[in-house]
Amino acid sequence: MNPGVILQLDKVIHEKGRLAIMSLLAATPELSFTELRDTLQMTDGNIVTHIRTLQEAGFVAVTKQFRDSRPLTTCQLTAAGRTAFAEHIALLEQIVRQNRPQSR
Amino acid sequence: MNPGVILQLDKVIHEKGRLAIMSLLAATPELSFTELRDTLQMTDGNIVTHIRTLQEAGFVAVTKQFRDSRPLTTCQLTAAGRTAFAEHIALLEQIVRQNRPQSR
Repeated sequence: MNPGVILQLDKVIHEKGRLAIMSLLAATPELSFTELRDTLQMTDGNIVTHIRTLQEAGFVAVTKQFRDSRPLTTCQLTAAGRTAFAEHIALLEQIVRQNRPQSR
Repeated sequence: MNPGVILQLDKVIHEKGRLAIMSLLAATPELSFTELRDTLQMTDGNIVTHIRTLQEAGFVAVTKQFRDSRPLTTCQLTAAGRTAFAEHIALLEQIVRQNRPQSR
């Protein structure tokens, strides 16, 4: 068991709310703020905070526009976000491999 | 992509410092506080806080004894801790499977 792999995990992505957001965004070109919030059953405050953290890390881009005269906020992964998410999943895969009962 | 699996993750174990502690303890009958601290290169304060959180969740048992007239604190996973860790790794495995680029 090598804890080095676990310690390499990026805390910004590892937190489970943000991991869920990154995972949803990785599977699609973009999602609206409302779709993310409702899918993850988060409060407005929670989702705003998580998206801001991901935005500050450069992993998520936020676009505000008007559609049918109503404001629409959409989120998408940046190229850096896509890379960081793929690396995170690869680390999780190593952690699973190292910690599966049958592999010890 | 089903975010439900991610949202099932137990925050007590998911935090990466605690995940590293649980992983080390899962691979061995017990480890001293000092071994854990030095292996993970944590401060005394950090490791004490994490161990206390794991203890309060019922996942880690802490034993204080004297060996060669010196105090020795050892940690081991409880049965509940072993089960919770195995379940956590199983959830991570599902998350990896759902999020691997080739599986989308």
